[in-house]
Amino acid sequence: MRVLGVDPGLTRCGVGVVDSLPGRRAKLVDVGVVRTDADLSVDLRLLRVAERLDAWLDEHLPDVVAVERVFAQHNVSTVTGTAQVAGIAMLAAARRGVPVALHTPSEVKAAVTGSGRADKEQVTRMVTRILGLAEAPRPADAADALALAICHLWRPSGALQGGERHELTAAQRAWAAAEHAARQRPRR
Amino acid sequence: MRVLGVDPGLTRCGVGVVDSLPGRRAKLVDVGVVRTDADLSVDLRLLRVAERLDAWLDEHLPDVVAVERVFAQHNVSTVTGTAQVAGIAMLAAARRGVPVALHTPSEVKAAVTGSGRADKEQVTRMVTRILGLAEAPRPADAADALALAICHLWRPSGALQGGERHELTAAQRAWAAAEHAARQRPRR
Repeated sequence: MRVLGVDPGLTRCGVGVVDSLPGRRAKLVDVGVVRTDADLSVDLRLLRVAERLDAWLDEHLPDVVAVERVFAQHNVSTVTGTAQVAGIAMLAAARRGVPVALHTPSEVKAAVTGSGRADKEQVTRMVTRILGLAEAPRPADAADALALAICHLWRPSGALQGGERHELTAAQRAWAAAEHAARQRPRR
Repeated sequence: MRVLGVDPGLTRCGVGVVDSLPGRRAKLVDVGVVRTDADLSVDLRLLRVAERLDAWLDEHLPDVVAVERVFAQHNVSTVTGTAQVAGIAMLAAARRGVPVALHTPSEVKAAVTGSGRADKEQVTRMVTRILGLAEAPRPADAADALALAICHLWRPSGALQGGERHELTAAQRAWAAAEHAARQRPRR
């Protein structure tokens, strides 16, 4: 299974793709950060993030997109932009028929470090070790996106949005992709 | 000028289109509410809202999209969904090269009733009167979307996102639409 993890943010949005390997191991596919310029208007910043997330989805064709669950209680000054980017990531997945899973920050920390209260450095260190990387992924948003993807691979079942949903079969995905393409065709 | 107002919400998203007329008057073009089922997962609810907003934009070709500015301080339990829908409305406009304006609830109330602390009934009553409607638009989300559009028509200049941006000329809009269509063409 291939998971694309998204650590949402308007200034820096972490993106990481991880493949599962047999025996509770995982392999890095790609990792990066989408940055937007705070001088741009919000609509153009969201467009920039959306275009980059679309490109990541189309290039890596993940089976699941794992997004950090945004709580309004945290970081009031940035939560609106964070929620908007999380929404755009979910929408980009939904348009392609790719299931979305939401994980809380403490679920992610617990999954990769064993403690829901681990700090950013511990998370980065464990992500580096789990994926067998020579160098720690930077910035922290990139490491957090990989941690989200690993968390999803190692999750107890049932983390997908909507209890009854499951990963799509190959046939279902082909159908969803065809439907998506049909919807996107420009009207003349 | 034609303005599409969006009162963002995940359960009910108000949408209203208004044309300006000479002499500080305005005309209703269309109004409605996009509803999504709370039993669906958030990604599928966002997809439903996005598809409906896309259809409104493509049908009515507004010059500006006016969206309510979401504050994290208000209604903590629903703010995440509200912010996500606002973000998706901004993204849908930006994908088409349509400028986005954000207005706060008190700016909207002040613009249509003269008081930034007017209640929902007063806003609905004034929207009904300004647009010369035989019947009040219901639910309140629909009236609020129209109030947002009217607020934008009657705004002091400078409400557009990013101080330097202006409405597009017809040629600029045609170019943006062509660019949008090219981007959306399915890759084979």
